Amino acid sequence: MPAPDPFFPRFAPQVERLIDLALEEDLGPGDVTTQALIPPEQEGMAQIRAKQSLVAAGLPVAARVFEKLSPALTFLPRVAEGEEVGPGTVLAEVAGPVAAILTAERTALNFLMRLSGIATFTRRMAALVRDFPVILVDTRKTTPGWRLLEKYAVRLGGAANHRFGLYDGVLIKNNHLTAVGSITEAVRRAREGVHQLLRVEVEVGSLGELEEALAAGAEVIMLDNLKEADLAEAVRRTAGRAVLEASGGMTPERLARVAATGVQFISMGALTHSAPAVDIHLRLVG
Amino acid sequence: MPAPDPFFPRFAPQVERLIDLALEEDLGPGDVTTQALIPPEQEGMAQIRAKQSLVAAGLPVAARVFEKLSPALTFLPRVAEGEEVGPGTVLAEVAGPVAAILTAERTALNFLMRLSGIATFTRRMAALVRDFPVILVDTRKTTPGWRLLEKYAVRLGGAANHRFGLYDGVLIKNNHLTAVGSITEAVRRAREGVHQLLRVEVEVGSLGELEEALAAGAEVIMLDNLKEADLAEAVRRTAGRAVLEASGGMTPERLARVAATGVQFISMGALTHSAPAVDIHLRLVG
Amino acid sequence: MPAPDPFFPRFAPQVERLIDLALEEDLGPGDVTTQALIPPEQEGMAQIRAKQSLVAAGLPVAARVFEKLSPALTFLPRVAEGEEVGPGTVLAEVAGPVAAILTAERTALNFLMRLSGIATFTRRMAALVRDFPVILVDTRKTTPGWRLLEKYAVRLGGAANHRFGLYDGVLIKNNHLTAVGSITEAVRRAREGVHQLLRVEVEVGSLGELEEALAAGAEVIMLDNLKEADLAEAVRRTAGRAVLEASGGMTPERLARVAATGVQFISMGALTHSAPAVDIHLRLVG
Amino acid sequence: MPAPDPFFPRFAPQVERLIDLALEEDLGPGDVTTQALIPPEQEGMAQIRAKQSLVAAGLPVAARVFEKLSPALTFLPRVAEGEEVGPGTVLAEVAGPVAAILTAERTALNFLMRLSGIATFTRRMAALVRDFPVILVDTRKTTPGWRLLEKYAVRLGGAANHRFGLYDGVLIKNNHLTAVGSITEAVRRAREGVHQLLRVEVEVGSLGELEEALAAGAEVIMLDNLKEADLAEAVRRTAGRAVLEASGGMTPERLARVAATGVQFISMGALTHSAPAVDIHLRLVG
Amino acid sequence: MPAPDPFFPRFAPQVERLIDLALEEDLGPGDVTTQALIPPEQEGMAQIRAKQSLVAAGLPVAARVFEKLSPALTFLPRVAEGEEVGPGTVLAEVAGPVAAILTAERTALNFLMRLSGIATFTRRMAALVRDFPVILVDTRKTTPGWRLLEKYAVRLGGAANHRFGLYDGVLIKNNHLTAVGSITEAVRRAREGVHQLLRVEVEVGSLGELEEALAAGAEVIMLDNLKEADLAEAVRRTAGRAVLEASGGMTPERLARVAATGVQFISMGALTHSAPAVDIHLRLVG
Amino acid sequence: MPAPDPFFPRFAPQVERLIDLALEEDLGPGDVTTQALIPPEQEGMAQIRAKQSLVAAGLPVAARVFEKLSPALTFLPRVAEGEEVGPGTVLAEVAGPVAAILTAERTALNFLMRLSGIATFTRRMAALVRDFPVILVDTRKTTPGWRLLEKYAVRLGGAANHRFGLYDGVLIKNNHLTAVGSITEAVRRAREGVHQLLRVEVEVGSLGELEEALAAGAEVIMLDNLKEADLAEAVRRTAGRAVLEASGGMTPERLARVAATGVQFISMGALTHSAPAVDIHLRLVG
Repeated sequence: MPAPDPFFPRFAPQVERLIDLALEEDLGPGDVTTQALIPPEQEGMAQIRAKQSLVAAGLPVAARVFEKLSPALTFLPRVAEGEEVGPGTVLAEVAGPVAAILTAERTALNFLMRLSGIATFTRRMAALVRDFPVILVDTRKTTPGWRLLEKYAVRLGGAANHRFGLYDGVLIKNNHLTAVGSITEAVRRAREGVHQLLRVEVEVGSLGELEEALAAGAEVIMLDNLKEADLAEAVRRTAGRAVLEASGGMTPERLARVAATGVQFISMGALTHSAPAVDIHLRLVG
Repeated sequence: MPAPDPFFPRFAPQVERLIDLALEEDLGPGDVTTQALIPPEQEGMAQIRAKQSLVAAGLPVAARVFEKLSPALTFLPRVAEGEEVGPGTVLAEVAGPVAAILTAERTALNFLMRLSGIATFTRRMAALVRDFPVILVDTRKTTPGWRLLEKYAVRLGGAANHRFGLYDGVLIKNNHLTAVGSITEAVRRAREGVHQLLRVEVEVGSLGELEEALAAGAEVIMLDNLKEADLAEAVRRTAGRAVLEASGGMTPERLARVAATGVQFISMGALTHSAPAVDIHLRLVG
Repeated sequence: MPAPDPFFPRFAPQVERLIDLALEEDLGPGDVTTQALIPPEQEGMAQIRAKQSLVAAGLPVAARVFEKLSPALTFLPRVAEGEEVGPGTVLAEVAGPVAAILTAERTALNFLMRLSGIATFTRRMAALVRDFPVILVDTRKTTPGWRLLEKYAVRLGGAANHRFGLYDGVLIKNNHLTAVGSITEAVRRAREGVHQLLRVEVEVGSLGELEEALAAGAEVIMLDNLKEADLAEAVRRTAGRAVLEASGGMTPERLARVAATGVQFISMGALTHSAPAVDIHLRLVG
Repeated sequence: MPAPDPFFPRFAPQVERLIDLALEEDLGPGDVTTQALIPPEQEGMAQIRAKQSLVAAGLPVAARVFEKLSPALTFLPRVAEGEEVGPGTVLAEVAGPVAAILTAERTALNFLMRLSGIATFTRRMAALVRDFPVILVDTRKTTPGWRLLEKYAVRLGGAANHRFGLYDGVLIKNNHLTAVGSITEAVRRAREGVHQLLRVEVEVGSLGELEEALAAGAEVIMLDNLKEADLAEAVRRTAGRAVLEASGGMTPERLARVAATGVQFISMGALTHSAPAVDIHLRLVG
Repeated sequence: MPAPDPFFPRFAPQVERLIDLALEEDLGPGDVTTQALIPPEQEGMAQIRAKQSLVAAGLPVAARVFEKLSPALTFLPRVAEGEEVGPGTVLAEVAGPVAAILTAERTALNFLMRLSGIATFTRRMAALVRDFPVILVDTRKTTPGWRLLEKYAVRLGGAANHRFGLYDGVLIKNNHLTAVGSITEAVRRAREGVHQLLRVEVEVGSLGELEEALAAGAEVIMLDNLKEADLAEAVRRTAGRAVLEASGGMTPERLARVAATGVQFISMGALTHSAPAVDIHLRLVG
Repeated sequence: MPAPDPFFPRFAPQVERLIDLALEEDLGPGDVTTQALIPPEQEGMAQIRAKQSLVAAGLPVAARVFEKLSPALTFLPRVAEGEEVGPGTVLAEVAGPVAAILTAERTALNFLMRLSGIATFTRRMAALVRDFPVILVDTRKTTPGWRLLEKYAVRLGGAANHRFGLYDGVLIKNNHLTAVGSITEAVRRAREGVHQLLRVEVEVGSLGELEEALAAGAEVIMLDNLKEADLAEAVRRTAGRAVLEASGGMTPERLARVAATGVQFISMGALTHSAPAVDIHLRLVG
């Protein structure tokens, strides 16, 4: 993607590949309806509208979809990425050959509905912990093929990103511990095996394991499925020796209570795997 | 994908490309944690378990993910695709190098959680109309890049597929009508412009438009956002001259009432765009 | 291909891939002759001329070939796609760096000679049935890798397209019937197994099979290798209950006689698999 | 292609890409007819038969097509590549899942019909000059995307290959001479600009140009569109100082007369651009 | 690459792409010499021998090259990756079709010569600091396209890897500081902008800047082009508050003196950008 | 690459693929440092400077790297490709978004350092034989993936290219002779098996083999690892009947002595496999 603003200056062939896959699966050898009905020279304009309150996300992706269909199309965003808008708001306008607009419509909307859905849900979750000095982060429970886009939508929603993949951070999880045998040994191997710019995080499931992780020198500790009381006790015992992240079973209802325990990070898989799509339409207006 | 059973004998490079994209985005240059912790020669076994009731979908995709990580892994499905299982059920077992299992884990689970989510939700929706001679179908509101997989999960869930893309069926929608000017002219152009194996469907928003579509010779008519009373009246007036499909605003609550109107098809975008992911875990067991 | 007019607004990565394959196989690491002989800064103009009467087809593909070689080239079509021209007619002019023109020459001409050959042959065949209410259509006997382009050339020639592939229409052929056992059962399975926008066509080889296909509810029936008398009888017996397509052994000599039987469609594999290439040259003129 | 015999040991990603393109354009999201009609577990056997006399070519390509559809298929060639067979001969048998056989059928046959057509036509042309010490060669007038395959079919037919592309031989053509100004200067630039393992060939259109080419040191000279008398005179004047190749307007009728002039090579574009496809069928036999 | 041992269990499409590029650039449409000389059925065996002392690296890559040429080849490593061997040592044997061996030879050797060159040079450098508690690491000055392979060779040589790319570690360099204005602000922005598993490293060029970096909370500090005395003073002043890395102008002569200053890491671009290739041959032995 | 000047008019997808590989391996999901530190709207200018004397090579490649990062960047070369410059010379300037400049920096420099290194080393070698009528050429000992670029740098350095791959010239090497049995038979097979535009070269290791190669009709003979006296004797005996190429163990010290023997070509693998990288920096200047 030739550097749409919000990714700038990131080079993102992954996103190009997903858009290509999406267009190819929807268009195949061509849009038979539109080709039969609409003469190529017919020009027009369409509006993309929110049908509900939402946080806009994905407009540069939609722009790229239309641009791929035809360089003769002009895509004009009417709101900023990350802007919160009410029902009926025009998110963008597309002008040019009507046939190209209609052929691209569904793919563009499918991107917008999902990404805006994630941004909208994240915004709501972030608001719940706004009064606490905690950072809400996502997880790797993203839609396969969509990692970069979904993490971008999370940022627009107002939360932060955890690591992007298996390569930019050490996170020793329960299954690793099963395989290695002990937290102490696992942390030792990690510290020795990875380069000096990566911190080591360990997932623990009890205060006892927390103690072991602290003693082993873990720099970040994920408190997995601990109750609020235990989280607070973990904060007390850690006393700043490691960064603490609460994880597991985060529902909107629990968020504020977890934030109140004093952990520095809360990770929530639902931000990406369970955010409902929002409703967005495209209408020809001329 | 070398013909996993449920797609057999379909050649599906699109699915391969999505799996590759998913693995590349999660692995990048490598899984630093696992490489530091787990020696390559350590062997083990893991179980993939349902954490809730669900309809299994995507096991061949998960199998392909593990196979891509290492040909030394053995993936054994323990339930059939489309099987409904209770919480705690082992869906599959994977044996071989522990490092490969742990590196593939998240990507495989992300596929399973989403596809099984769609199959599970679809099964529930299909049950609501089981007593009517109606066919529940999906739409093109799928996750970009996932068209084939999501439509496959819908079939496993017990509903049927609408067209796969813009190329295997004529569907004249509201925006096409705006551009062409009339239903009559739109149907005429469609019939003349596409080959003899495609039927022509038109979307109508009122009984008046239905009459025009019937007169124009539409073979399938989508009744968009009509109330139940109007749907029933549409069935009466059509009198078998065209296939009728009800669409728009399909909630679980409405499904049976819509089915009772006598339409032959009900299309429901929520089957793919709003099915919640189900919870599935992987645990090393030896 | 960034939307050359005649495909507009179709997104056609398949065509891009074929052009890339063609350029890569001809250029490899470079055009050693041209690089040794022609300085990069030498500019010139070339004309592409028909050496015989022909129907022009493929100019946007040729344009894309030159554009890929160098953005400094200007390609000016001098006739319209589908236009019938006499020997000596200038089809297009290319101006810019001489080296780029000469390197692209053969690939561009190879596309033009084949596609114009198909359009020219099709135009001649279509003329033979012009006085009948029949539609001449192509088949899937196309050059592997060229499906979209050859079907496009057929349209330019004045015939219509049959289905584009195995996915946009049901065509039950002889081998399917061998495997299933009966026409009746085959049609039943087809109708149940595919979505509502696809019609079901069956190939039959006798009037007896025609009766079975009609009874089974086939919407389109391919009469394969029937003599003209039997075709006429088939039309009589069908009496509008299904669309009839004559197929098999279509030679120019037979076309009008087949058309006179009253079938609605005639399919002819020779349109794509046996159309002779036409002769087209490129000459530097300054 | 993992080294089918006749290409062995050539690594040919170009051929893989063409096969993929061919399968993707025919299958798209799937073979709807076969999937609806044939259960995946149904096994069977099919025979591929010649419907006319032909020289077999392309069986390893067909094998690869079936293998890509399903690893469960077994493809058994029954004749050798390049073997001349009569009508009705079984060229190959395919056994395994019936659905996979039927889905691959058309693509496999399309490859076989074209490649065997070229081999058959070439065999006939080569026979016409069999009694002369001349070598019949192809040109670069091949179907875009098919260069390697068509040149392979030419070899099977009994002729030889000219250069494969613009990179493995210097051929100074008429347009190059127009751009450079003289044969002498063109040959000089070529000899200086390319490496020591490439010979320099020049196209000449008269005996006068032949003299200039010889004086310039051309190692191979293409005599373009010269009459037989002039060709014979060219052979006499050259007296072994260069290799001579006759080219242009080669029809079956002229071949022997041209061969009799004593030129060492005859190049004939029709071998690839105008060879008619041969008729080959596939039938399920059990 | 299907998990050759030393990368196990890493999924490395990047390496596959480089090998494909390498084979395609060397083979193009085929190895004309070998195809003309060696019959496909001729079998034989070859030995790959070190012509000098070296540390073996890249044998799994060579194995993959031969495997891609022909699945009929057997590649047997005779030494372990990372093993130090003397001149004349057989590194591996390849058996199977002679033609495939000879066609793959140059590409396989080109990989081995470069990777073993890096491993050999690294081993020599690592030996120079063996007696110090310092870790020798590489940089991002790798051959474009070879990042993963060269960093792998560095590990085999006995040094460690710095970050793999721009995504798995924060390294604020001189140009970043120019753009931001101050170390303090740069570190602040970095800590706020990246996730909790990444440490922040800053490049400083003087003891004054070191003080600012320490005050800003940098966790790793790169001392760029400091003299040994200043490095020692930096270690003293830092007193364990940050990890220190010496960088810039590392020659074999300086290494031990730099190591003696007490820095924890020394980074050396020459490990990858200036390691001389080692001499390795392949000889047919039967 | 859309025709950067020095390759013009060559179509080079191979180079594009290498650049993509290089950017992807360095950027992965993004440049975390730059994204955190530099606002997208910050503009600036950078200079790329030689830190030593060198022959510039690769500026169009660097230009392409920057262009891929952001179309908003302007790359201005300040010296010509192949120009020899002193330390401190500004090779190019880049202006535009600072973030894009810094993200592309390392990849661009890595290309420049290697290609300029080869051009610089080649220039020095070519100077050593300047006074002899000999042509210094490269070999196929290039960095896998870099064949076209490295051979281009060799040309800029002032030497010439040997064949580009296994497809554009016949070179019968020692291992081929082992497999075939004799020089005479090998040359015969080669002449018969390849097309008329390729010359046949044989590698010989003694004057006896030279005689056999001459008698067999080899057009080019590679004298491998012969001493200067033998090379001179080979020239005398050959007496112009074949082109002679000296090869093997070419050090700077030997070059002039070998050139003095009268051979027409000297091939030197070190031009590409052992040229040291040169030092080039990028600095933001505003």
